[in-house]
Amino acid sequence: MVTIMVGDFSLLPPRGMRDLVGEDAEILEYLFNEFKNYARINGFKPVIPPTLEYFKLFEKKSGEEIKRSMYVFEDKAGRLLSLRPEITASIVRIYLRLLRGLPKPVKLYYVAQCFRYEEPQHGRYREFWQAGLEVIGVRGVEGDLEAALTASSFLDKIGLEHFYEVSNVSLHRSIMSGFGIPVETQDHVLHLIDKRMNDKAIEELRNVNSDAADAMKKLIELSLDDVRQYIDEYKDVLSNYLEKLEEELDRTTRFIEILGDMGYKAVYNPNLVRGLAYYSGLIFEYKAIGGLELSIGGGGRYDGLTTVYGGPFEYSTGLALGLDRIALSIKGVKPPYRPRVLIIVLDHNLVGYAFKIKRIVEDIGAESTLYHHSKIKKALSTASKAGYDLALIIGKKEFEEKVVTVKDLRTGHQTRVASDEVVREIVEKLARI
Amino acid sequence: MVTIMVGDFSLLPPRGMRDLVGEDAEILEYLFNEFKNYARINGFKPVIPPTLEYFKLFEKKSGEEIKRSMYVFEDKAGRLLSLRPEITASIVRIYLRLLRGLPKPVKLYYVAQCFRYEEPQHGRYREFWQAGLEVIGVRGVEGDLEAALTASSFLDKIGLEHFYEVSNVSLHRSIMSGFGIPVETQDHVLHLIDKRMNDKAIEELRNVNSDAADAMKKLIELSLDDVRQYIDEYKDVLSNYLEKLEEELDRTTRFIEILGDMGYKAVYNPNLVRGLAYYSGLIFEYKAIGGLELSIGGGGRYDGLTTVYGGPFEYSTGLALGLDRIALSIKGVKPPYRPRVLIIVLDHNLVGYAFKIKRIVEDIGAESTLYHHSKIKKALSTASKAGYDLALIIGKKEFEEKVVTVKDLRTGHQTRVASDEVVREIVEKLARI
Repeated sequence: MVTIMVGDFSLLPPRGMRDLVGEDAEILEYLFNEFKNYARINGFKPVIPPTLEYFKLFEKKSGEEIKRSMYVFEDKAGRLLSLRPEITASIVRIYLRLLRGLPKPVKLYYVAQCFRYEEPQHGRYREFWQAGLEVIGVRGVEGDLEAALTASSFLDKIGLEHFYEVSNVSLHRSIMSGFGIPVETQDHVLHLIDKRMNDKAIEELRNVNSDAADAMKKLIELSLDDVRQYIDEYKDVLSNYLEKLEEELDRTTRFIEILGDMGYKAVYNPNLVRGLAYYSGLIFEYKAIGGLELSIGGGGRYDGLTTVYGGPFEYSTGLALGLDRIALSIKGVKPPYRPRVLIIVLDHNLVGYAFKIKRIVEDIGAESTLYHHSKIKKALSTASKAGYDLALIIGKKEFEEKVVTVKDLRTGHQTRVASDEVVREIVEKLARI
Repeated sequence: MVTIMVGDFSLLPPRGMRDLVGEDAEILEYLFNEFKNYARINGFKPVIPPTLEYFKLFEKKSGEEIKRSMYVFEDKAGRLLSLRPEITASIVRIYLRLLRGLPKPVKLYYVAQCFRYEEPQHGRYREFWQAGLEVIGVRGVEGDLEAALTASSFLDKIGLEHFYEVSNVSLHRSIMSGFGIPVETQDHVLHLIDKRMNDKAIEELRNVNSDAADAMKKLIELSLDDVRQYIDEYKDVLSNYLEKLEEELDRTTRFIEILGDMGYKAVYNPNLVRGLAYYSGLIFEYKAIGGLELSIGGGGRYDGLTTVYGGPFEYSTGLALGLDRIALSIKGVKPPYRPRVLIIVLDHNLVGYAFKIKRIVEDIGAESTLYHHSKIKKALSTASKAGYDLALIIGKKEFEEKVVTVKDLRTGHQTRVASDEVVREIVEKLARI
């Protein structure tokens, strides 16, 4: 092996990327696991979408901010590719390509990293982990609730108290459409509201149509109880959308009610519009209770997104959780502890034998590492420093006498156990940790 | 929602990328899970490396073929980035940056997708899944064995019979170095052997040094029993490497022996050289038994790779398994079956109540989906078509009488169960599936 010093080599990952190790990696792995478990027992099936997609896929409906911040490049054959900035577009494409023959509802989950070229901040990275649920083929609120409650079960399990902010963009879209505001302007106004630039949003809208601006200003300060009255007030402007608005108002109300019945706080907030241009009705966000009330995810209806990609109209709803934010929010929460066993083999020639003992420990499901060192004192000090709970010591004497020395590293208590009794002894000892 | 037909839009993912759904996704998820489980109980800790790295990281030691086939592009700030073609380089970088203070051995695992711009073939994709184990800080063969046997436990668990091909590039490297062959030529010769172009490799070597070519030709046809005699024969040429070769010969022999003791066939094959330029000694590959004897992964010693990135010398060994190849090899093997429950709610107003029943099913750990339809016949036919095992039916009558109708969809047997007895009934029914 040639050893070249690379003088200008930096050990840092590229800006905005992370090296996840230790507790940070353990917690993310724990979140991956629990999320997938709750998705599965709630009847969602896995999809593993490609990390690279054609740029075109995201061009249409991902929202202006996302488009600006995509990693885009040409491959060697000149294809314009993009590292996915979000997953729903891929899911819809894959649904249309492979899954539209399945009985409805089609319920899908994914855990996947996404990429956005944005200024890195605390809790915001250029590569980040999304866990998502999608329900295709359900018109009723039970579809929205099935996704939402599955995510809540997961958040409950990992000990993250949360509440819902709920809104419905069908009202925002309809009122602007009613006033003849072009879709691109609508997208831009909603983008500004999403960025908490309400004043700027209303101002820009006012430059196009001042009645629309007044109506919009009123809307984003509305309480849920006043929505029906608002629709009444603007019924001429909204005349083409009344049926849809009725359905969506009913959806919003029942979504909030049933979440409440299930023990989750859900508050209506018409200021919430979400950054993605494909939402068509109910939308919601998850906020962590306590501390910074960080938004840890969200979702909503995207009925008809299938048609953007040339497919038939499908009712669709879904959500995505930001696992990095969630990991930050549960900082300090520890995944279930596993006792750790160090198998110390003192003699070079007993390595093979020690691996047989290790297989026994593996079968028990305890965590073990094999460590070869001829000096027992040195080995035990390593074991303690590295935080092991139990040491199994295998030397020549132990081998000849068919025993294993078992040492509890926290109490210092040590016993010699017949090899064929070692399983029982370990199980017993570990149960006490 | 505006619905635009995108005329030129293709539903296919970019060339060489895959949309993994259904059984393909289920099996990969199952492999992710089981691999991580065996890694963890064998004392390996998770690392989640960034998907994007500086191109420089791979430039030095990944081997000529990999370098040619990387996805490389500039980000918006002009950084030359690469989608990782393999993971070990990242692990070594991360070890040097964050983990070198930890007590040895440092044992790490990862499951991550890699990217290579190659001609797609059956079982070879431009995005593919690697599962890896790395052991840093162990000089003895127990380090190699701990990684190897952990992978074997995983392969056993998923039902994949396998054997090992074992080689040791220290001999190939030393004999060529002894004859004064420059490292770049060595890399190229080994690359050709790796591509099964032995004749071309020997011929190109002969153009540089015909004695070296003779020695190399002999070496790649050697049996393990003859290695010591070979070293003797070339002891003048190898005089600078004798100690290292002795250690590596002992390692190879014991690696094969102990694997044999543990029940795994391991055969010496000096034709095996592996495509990565960083290997320094023992190397091995996993082959599936039966069928095409596909190579499903491999690994080896990469002592000192740390120094390439400016760090201190560390003993290191590791392996990576190709999960896509493994998924192909166990095609037909099914992950453990979970019975599926459809909760049919017949009345719009009972959706909230039905979600409470669903939570009970969730707590049991059974898989369930909520389905709202006012026509029971239609709902049951959907349930059967979609392959559910059990239906829980909740209508107005059931709600008022505080019962749930439980229907076994395979036998057609149907009972009415008191709501507070529903858990016991489901558990009992599911146990019989």
